[in-house]
Amino acid sequence: MALRPRVESLLDRATTPLVAHAHCDLPCGVYDPAQAKIEAQSVKACMEKYNGSTDADFKVRATLIKEERADLVKHHLWVLWTDYFKPEHLAAHPNLHELFWKATKSAGEAKKTNDVAVADRLLTEIDQIAEIFWDTKK
Amino acid sequence: MALRPRVESLLDRATTPLVAHAHCDLPCGVYDPAQAKIEAQSVKACMEKYNGSTDADFKVRATLIKEERADLVKHHLWVLWTDYFKPEHLAAHPNLHELFWKATKSAGEAKKTNDVAVADRLLTEIDQIAEIFWDTKK
Amino acid sequence: MALRPRVESLLDRATTPLVAHAHCDLPCGVYDPAQAKIEAQSVKACMEKYNGSTDADFKVRATLIKEERADLVKHHLWVLWTDYFKPEHLAAHPNLHELFWKATKSAGEAKKTNDVAVADRLLTEIDQIAEIFWDTKK
Amino acid sequence: MALRPRVESLLDRATTPLVAHAHCDLPCGVYDPAQAKIEAQSVKACMEKYNGSTDADFKVRATLIKEERADLVKHHLWVLWTDYFKPEHLAAHPNLHELFWKATKSAGEAKKTNDVAVADRLLTEIDQIAEIFWDTKK
Amino acid sequence: MALRPRVESLLDRATTPLVAHAHCDLPCGVYDPAQAKIEAQSVKACMEKYNGSTDADFKVRATLIKEERADLVKHHLWVLWTDYFKPEHLAAHPNLHELFWKATKSAGEAKKTNDVAVADRLLTEIDQIAEIFWDTKK
Amino acid sequence: MALRPRVESLLDRATTPLVAHAHCDLPCGVYDPAQAKIEAQSVKACMEKYNGSTDADFKVRATLIKEERADLVKHHLWVLWTDYFKPEHLAAHPNLHELFWKATKSAGEAKKTNDVAVADRLLTEIDQIAEIFWDTKK
Repeated sequence: MALRPRVESLLDRATTPLVAHAHCDLPCGVYDPAQAKIEAQSVKACMEKYNGSTDADFKVRATLIKEERADLVKHHLWVLWTDYFKPEHLAAHPNLHELFWKATKSAGEAKKTNDVAVADRLLTEIDQIAEIFWDTKK
Repeated sequence: MALRPRVESLLDRATTPLVAHAHCDLPCGVYDPAQAKIEAQSVKACMEKYNGSTDADFKVRATLIKEERADLVKHHLWVLWTDYFKPEHLAAHPNLHELFWKATKSAGEAKKTNDVAVADRLLTEIDQIAEIFWDTKK
Repeated sequence: MALRPRVESLLDRATTPLVAHAHCDLPCGVYDPAQAKIEAQSVKACMEKYNGSTDADFKVRATLIKEERADLVKHHLWVLWTDYFKPEHLAAHPNLHELFWKATKSAGEAKKTNDVAVADRLLTEIDQIAEIFWDTKK
Repeated sequence: MALRPRVESLLDRATTPLVAHAHCDLPCGVYDPAQAKIEAQSVKACMEKYNGSTDADFKVRATLIKEERADLVKHHLWVLWTDYFKPEHLAAHPNLHELFWKATKSAGEAKKTNDVAVADRLLTEIDQIAEIFWDTKK
Repeated sequence: MALRPRVESLLDRATTPLVAHAHCDLPCGVYDPAQAKIEAQSVKACMEKYNGSTDADFKVRATLIKEERADLVKHHLWVLWTDYFKPEHLAAHPNLHELFWKATKSAGEAKKTNDVAVADRLLTEIDQIAEIFWDTKK
Repeated sequence: MALRPRVESLLDRATTPLVAHAHCDLPCGVYDPAQAKIEAQSVKACMEKYNGSTDADFKVRATLIKEERADLVKHHLWVLWTDYFKPEHLAAHPNLHELFWKATKSAGEAKKTNDVAVADRLLTEIDQIAEIFWDTKK
């Protein structure tokens, strides 16, 4: 199968909308920074697909979907910050506020560019948050 | 901290709404049955919290959130079924259609009950789908 | 099959959320007052099911779904009013504004009651709008 | 009135967003494959308008709206498949799963193209589903 | 800081989606035509930013965001019209229906153009509505 | 007019859903903490109406609407925090992170209670944020 139809086919999967909700913090681990990471990976993939295409319509679709995904990254991170993390976590991880602020700003920046380096930075910041998150679960 | 405020606090995390989108099928594995499973775990948790509470308002909130989560389970499963799976996957896994049909029906049934057995069955069905999914990734 | 599970099963179908959009006014008739009517019929059905049940959780679900459906009735009517109807239609049907105002107010009233008479009045008002709509299509 | 403003005016009507919900299966026939068909007709209309225009901004809007409509087609079909159809229907119509799978895949394909033939195929598939649906209502 | 990144940065802020709801008519004044006005100002700003840019991707984003904002203007106006205003208000302000009809039509027109004059007309119409609104509050 | 129908009528206005978006930071001041405050006032009003009613269905509706409003408070605050405020603002207002964290946590707490004191605290926190916001605009 040729690259273009495959890429478009993949991209298509990204676009079925629904109303989603942040997860409750279950003992089974439903509350999970993986949600933000998955969306950030999609942001990065949209950039790569945009950069690899010369089709104007396809680029419009990639831009549109990236916009939505970056919003979701922000949302999932905000929910973690406000809802999961408690004062005792902040005491143990004093950079918590700054980390979330930077990561959500990176997600906003990712809307305005197709520079994969921005998505990579965002992914790194989410990994740092995930590390703290799982540390608090120990 | 007493149980009730903790439980409510957890439940609260479940309710921040946003517009979500199914993921594209990236090589990094963004397209993932874990999304449906996470929501199904939330459905189960809402049932457990409902069953463990005697507070009418809390039960209203648990019912409301469970409704939304069960919708998300259905959505994520539908997206996987239509968007990810291809005819060659169906050839290798002829029960694919039936499996998705049953799992999405279980998600619908979970809206109408707080019987945890329904959520457990749903989780089992999602695990069966996940097994096929990851088999196709080999 | 007993009535209650059947009713709940029916009700369940009403709740999968998505982002919908008003239709463009195609020659094929996509722009259609039937959309508002379908939702209004659902509002009425939710009332009937609410009235026929003694299960508190079921009533919560019926209330929740009725709320959403009544919103959709309003939306579809507003879109018709602003987007479909033109000054020449108003000239031919001077009661147009009043008719839409009353119908959308009835939809709002339907949220606050399970009195089927309110839903019936709403349906009648939508039928009056539909009559004008199809008259303009001649 | 010139074509362009008229076409844009029509297109504009397609874009007012709201949260919609699948319908309950009422005796009055609220649960109806017409919902999917209406959206599919809109998808086709967006393609036709896209193809008839040379205005880049207009094409962006047509692409955006088509994306949303195609999502709605999928959603309405998925709801019918999981929520309306029962095992006895499947027994009488063994191609049910395949039919829904193909139709929802066609809706996905319609996002990636402005080839009206894809929309026509989708409409045909929805008609086939509708035929079965109304057959089960007899 | 250069203009372009600043403008993009500003635009980015416009795009985080959520499910919003019209406000109840509180004594504290929560029910407020300012909501429609804020969105109309955003529509105008999107036009200005679109007109000031030569970047195709940026223009796509501006078009997309303007579309959404104009929808919100319509929604907030429709809610005011149906939910806030009562027959006695109409008696005192007989042009009420016409005013809302024109203003919501202007919002629709604003989707199809980047002519700031359309946004300015819309803002004027909203101001006229606000004047009536606050008059009824006296 | 009796209190109950009036209160219900008011509450009804709160429930028409739409997809909203945070505002861009325009020179005209579209980016505004008033958005969060309006929603917080609605949260408080829902509590008051809940407390003043003995009607179970009405209380369900008040709970449902309060849930949505509190989500919107959080969203508007998060957007301000990430999108509006810059490092230089943080330097001038070192309590910025803490203030937003507390306010969004108060919004979450408001979902779980009908204690008006929680809404009042939330309103106070939003006022503190607004004060900083307008200070940065000088």
